Amino acid sequence: MKIGVVGASGYVGGETLRLLVNHPEVEITMVTSRQHAGEYIHRVHPSLKGFTDLTFSELDYDKMSDKCDLVFTAVPHGTATEIVKTLYDRDIKIIDLSADYRLHDPKDYDKWYGWKHPHPDYLPKSVFGIPEMHREQIKNAQLVSCPGCMAVTSILALAPLIRNDLIDTEHIIVDAKIGSSGAGSGSGTAHAMRAGVIRPYKPAKHRHTGEIEQELSEIAGKKIHISMSPHAVDVVRGILCTNHTFMKNHIDEKELWKLYRQAYGEEKFIRLIRDKNGLYKFPDPKFIVGSNFCDIGFELDEDNNRLIILSASDNLMKGAAGSAIQNMNIMAGFDEMAGLKYTPLTPV
Amino acid sequence: MKIGVVGASGYVGGETLRLLVNHPEVEITMVTSRQHAGEYIHRVHPSLKGFTDLTFSELDYDKMSDKCDLVFTAVPHGTATEIVKTLYDRDIKIIDLSADYRLHDPKDYDKWYGWKHPHPDYLPKSVFGIPEMHREQIKNAQLVSCPGCMAVTSILALAPLIRNDLIDTEHIIVDAKIGSSGAGSGSGTAHAMRAGVIRPYKPAKHRHTGEIEQELSEIAGKKIHISMSPHAVDVVRGILCTNHTFMKNHIDEKELWKLYRQAYGEEKFIRLIRDKNGLYKFPDPKFIVGSNFCDIGFELDEDNNRLIILSASDNLMKGAAGSAIQNMNIMAGFDEMAGLKYTPLTPV
Amino acid sequence: MKIGVVGASGYVGGETLRLLVNHPEVEITMVTSRQHAGEYIHRVHPSLKGFTDLTFSELDYDKMSDKCDLVFTAVPHGTATEIVKTLYDRDIKIIDLSADYRLHDPKDYDKWYGWKHPHPDYLPKSVFGIPEMHREQIKNAQLVSCPGCMAVTSILALAPLIRNDLIDTEHIIVDAKIGSSGAGSGSGTAHAMRAGVIRPYKPAKHRHTGEIEQELSEIAGKKIHISMSPHAVDVVRGILCTNHTFMKNHIDEKELWKLYRQAYGEEKFIRLIRDKNGLYKFPDPKFIVGSNFCDIGFELDEDNNRLIILSASDNLMKGAAGSAIQNMNIMAGFDEMAGLKYTPLTPV
Amino acid sequence: MKIGVVGASGYVGGETLRLLVNHPEVEITMVTSRQHAGEYIHRVHPSLKGFTDLTFSELDYDKMSDKCDLVFTAVPHGTATEIVKTLYDRDIKIIDLSADYRLHDPKDYDKWYGWKHPHPDYLPKSVFGIPEMHREQIKNAQLVSCPGCMAVTSILALAPLIRNDLIDTEHIIVDAKIGSSGAGSGSGTAHAMRAGVIRPYKPAKHRHTGEIEQELSEIAGKKIHISMSPHAVDVVRGILCTNHTFMKNHIDEKELWKLYRQAYGEEKFIRLIRDKNGLYKFPDPKFIVGSNFCDIGFELDEDNNRLIILSASDNLMKGAAGSAIQNMNIMAGFDEMAGLKYTPLTPV
Repeated sequence: MKIGVVGASGYVGGETLRLLVNHPEVEITMVTSRQHAGEYIHRVHPSLKGFTDLTFSELDYDKMSDKCDLVFTAVPHGTATEIVKTLYDRDIKIIDLSADYRLHDPKDYDKWYGWKHPHPDYLPKSVFGIPEMHREQIKNAQLVSCPGCMAVTSILALAPLIRNDLIDTEHIIVDAKIGSSGAGSGSGTAHAMRAGVIRPYKPAKHRHTGEIEQELSEIAGKKIHISMSPHAVDVVRGILCTNHTFMKNHIDEKELWKLYRQAYGEEKFIRLIRDKNGLYKFPDPKFIVGSNFCDIGFELDEDNNRLIILSASDNLMKGAAGSAIQNMNIMAGFDEMAGLKYTPLTPV
Repeated sequence: MKIGVVGASGYVGGETLRLLVNHPEVEITMVTSRQHAGEYIHRVHPSLKGFTDLTFSELDYDKMSDKCDLVFTAVPHGTATEIVKTLYDRDIKIIDLSADYRLHDPKDYDKWYGWKHPHPDYLPKSVFGIPEMHREQIKNAQLVSCPGCMAVTSILALAPLIRNDLIDTEHIIVDAKIGSSGAGSGSGTAHAMRAGVIRPYKPAKHRHTGEIEQELSEIAGKKIHISMSPHAVDVVRGILCTNHTFMKNHIDEKELWKLYRQAYGEEKFIRLIRDKNGLYKFPDPKFIVGSNFCDIGFELDEDNNRLIILSASDNLMKGAAGSAIQNMNIMAGFDEMAGLKYTPLTPV
Repeated sequence: MKIGVVGASGYVGGETLRLLVNHPEVEITMVTSRQHAGEYIHRVHPSLKGFTDLTFSELDYDKMSDKCDLVFTAVPHGTATEIVKTLYDRDIKIIDLSADYRLHDPKDYDKWYGWKHPHPDYLPKSVFGIPEMHREQIKNAQLVSCPGCMAVTSILALAPLIRNDLIDTEHIIVDAKIGSSGAGSGSGTAHAMRAGVIRPYKPAKHRHTGEIEQELSEIAGKKIHISMSPHAVDVVRGILCTNHTFMKNHIDEKELWKLYRQAYGEEKFIRLIRDKNGLYKFPDPKFIVGSNFCDIGFELDEDNNRLIILSASDNLMKGAAGSAIQNMNIMAGFDEMAGLKYTPLTPV
Repeated sequence: MKIGVVGASGYVGGETLRLLVNHPEVEITMVTSRQHAGEYIHRVHPSLKGFTDLTFSELDYDKMSDKCDLVFTAVPHGTATEIVKTLYDRDIKIIDLSADYRLHDPKDYDKWYGWKHPHPDYLPKSVFGIPEMHREQIKNAQLVSCPGCMAVTSILALAPLIRNDLIDTEHIIVDAKIGSSGAGSGSGTAHAMRAGVIRPYKPAKHRHTGEIEQELSEIAGKKIHISMSPHAVDVVRGILCTNHTFMKNHIDEKELWKLYRQAYGEEKFIRLIRDKNGLYKFPDPKFIVGSNFCDIGFELDEDNNRLIILSASDNLMKGAAGSAIQNMNIMAGFDEMAGLKYTPLTPV
């Protein structure tokens, strides 16, 4: 399968390339970057030196149509709207890593992004790219939109609770912690001011809230509100979502594990973490880095009728490029794990 | 004033010494450590080289009675019970940095610590050492017990809301993030396994919950339950408490600021953080390190009727030794800021 | 091929397992750990959860003889001497990751390690495991001893200069910087005291000096002395060796690159780094992490006739487990890159 | 004493302000920043909130003449040439934190900075601001130029050896490691690409080489060449210089300590580090952070006749603002330690 990557100079684009160069079923045929056109890829992504001799090119739709069966778009939010539409109209399969085709309701772009979507008629064509929830739709999709990194990490944790109507949906708190690569390569804070932070940003109204509400509301069959607050912490990769929920009725630990095993027991990229002793009692992105896993675990707080669902992922893998490759594997009929059989890199 | 420090080889003891060597009103006369008796202090605390020529000695109560007007006890939880009692009986003033005299109700030691307090009759003699709440009692106390680092950071944030009966007390979530020095010098995880973590520990039933509930219940005049979940993150010093609360009635931002200014406008060690733009919109321990401040700020999430109160402190300063010195200043009638006029160290 | 790992609970053992579970040509049949016998591997190495259901067992030589064609020994220095000999006598192929069979001259164990080698007659049976230098010997070896992490990183950088007699051999300084995983899982400093260090340790007489001198002296045909000084820095994985050398005669940059291309142009795991602009002008372990590369580059300091050779590697990969797998591939006749086609993980 | 700071929005300017707000003998009267004119200082330097109500103003020489007895200039290299000259001509005392008046020989600006100095006649008016070497000159100077952070750290370590003619001056290697705050607030790399680096930059021809050569040559009475190579490591503050030297004749450890005690025994801001055991055997910036110390220690490598002199400092303190305040104290006749009695902040 011949693959193109649009906007490949950022962290997400680079991670997508990193996975593609070792993928057993594909060939990278075109990689675009306005800023770096003409340069070798390894000038921008030194870790790929020795893995590819490709150079970046300008985005040329005719060439792309000729050369690519499927294209990953990894451009900033807002700039994907036109690119994705143009590729779609040329019958190319697209996996979009921006937010531009994630939300189904055009009004949600006004609300969460502050701009009007220019192609609202294309939104229904896009499948929200969480295979663990929408695998069948993804199989036949021409356009898949990969979820936000905190969104997918939180949704996977909360979905089984919503599906089984176990929690008070008025008090769902997603307290997220995320590393600096989540900010994108264009907008990072300098090391001296970013190192050592535990910095709240957008404690209310963070954009990923919209995606989480969309997906959980769809499951619930009613509007669900999410109270999300992300924090920047001193790692490069990794997300932990501490999802604080309150149970409607008493439910014991055993039943909960059963529920999660039913939901995810067959899923290759979800690991349920339960250990009463030892090093790894709860999900921690430290033990996820470099892999496509989302680890999920929980703790019951009987004093407060609280259920804390913890979920961890690598924001550039399951939170972005890893999900994108997983979606490609499904769309193309490859083994879903092809090119994704990475263990976490520990310790790192 | 002649000062002793019992158990001065740990991080909290070391920080107490660090503040004492530069304090304008005191003289350190005795510093004990079983393990390091006979050694120079700077062998254990290299940063103090050049500031003191004292050596550690064994704990000898007779000598301590002779040499010290006031003693800081910085020994592990559970081992302070006897030491504090003995010093108390000898009419020495004590500032205890362990948890052993924080809780007023002996039963709370069973619940939160799993042991029976051997001297329950001494618990009423101890004042809970948050000057911003109990300044008058501290003035005349013989025994002050300094609060837990996450407890004080959270209590200061939440107290004004409880006092004014503004929030739903069934859904108070304290999502705390803390650095590695909080673990104490005896029990830290090796760097390779601790670096880069975002690790939940005790997502339910953390011991500091007991202190927070005690203090807030006292204000509320009824039992308050707190849903606390701490996380280890990759800093050495610093705590951020993200206190998620839900408002009973609508209240606007202006009123809230007024409320907090009323509560803390005169307090020297509490800074209210409000900035719509720029670097420092919300409290972040990055900008607290090395100082005795607790920074407090908030964000309103109108979609969910949620009020997120953010509070940040340095766990070894306001969270331990800084509070201890502040308490000493009050007990001794010194300027409350004496020996504590440190700016945060930024960037670090 | 059936593989055993002795001492698999440490960082190096864990990394060896991490590479073996995804290696296309081998099956892990026995994994020993005294401390963890009976436990699942993923209890100790959480990142391997989902990749193997093996448990640790006690070291039983009879079972090992039955079950394993080749064994990796990853036990602490000094404890491998007996284990390796016993396995050797049972005709098992061994790749030793300790220092116990690295040095050819028994007297060097007195000098660098302070103990007398109990089996000096086995030292000649061991091949020093740098494929780029001893590939032919490794092919036919029963026992290969993997080099120290700083040693291999430095030797690969310096060997071409020594081979071509270009530098003053009285003034070779190896200033090494290394991450915390190099300390091993048993002996790491707690995070609060290790984070943020730039800490010299053993500025003279570090043990790896012995290996570097052995290998370079063999090339030079005369005794070479190395002035080595390692430093602990705040990363988990990674080594940078700044090899300061002084040129005998003037030599220009072009000639030097030619020399290094001749030496390593065909080597799959050595990358020569040369870029006048951009992000990656010199080797930096940041862009190596998780891969088996040793990146080499240099800078000429004409003012001082100095040639600075820079070399970077991942201490757990090329510096330990990666080299071990590379050696196994050669011994077993597999593709030398089998199971090692990892890109660096960037950014991390 | 009335103090102005020109260019106070960067890290060095901020650190200078941090020290000034708590200095017992001075009053800050004017603080300039083109970019932030009109804003409160704590908008840019949040750690100063509560310590000053000053705002930034434009640089106005007339007002500055009226309001200030002494001015710190903390602007980027190259932009201080005019500002310093103008202030000098107005008879204001100046402490310059740029490199623009450090080098005595105008030709050195061509060589190390690549530009011609516009006011070479002012270079002789400037005293190189290391009190431990030029205290008497500083006392009477109108213009003092503070040394570069790596330069002062290295010079203090090497000076006694040069003065006593103990080392081979053809082979002096300064291998420096430095934190991200050394890059200045305007030019830092984003966290995701800077975290975890061990990155060589300018392994030859780094600008600080010029200062070190100037100062050591002056002592030696002949031209000394320095082989300097700096590296960026993952700390925010701190420098370690590993100064590798080769001894002319044998000298034992005792004599060396005597020599260093003679050189620095009376110096308040130099600590000699010698401990055979324990945590702190060699200088490490970890134990310096926040203080004005330069810690010096060494190790003898008899195998190679090598003497490794290790020196550590905080690049924003002794390496910049701390030295600046120390120089001010001397120029103004204050206690040399006034406003600088800070212990290091440990652990941080």
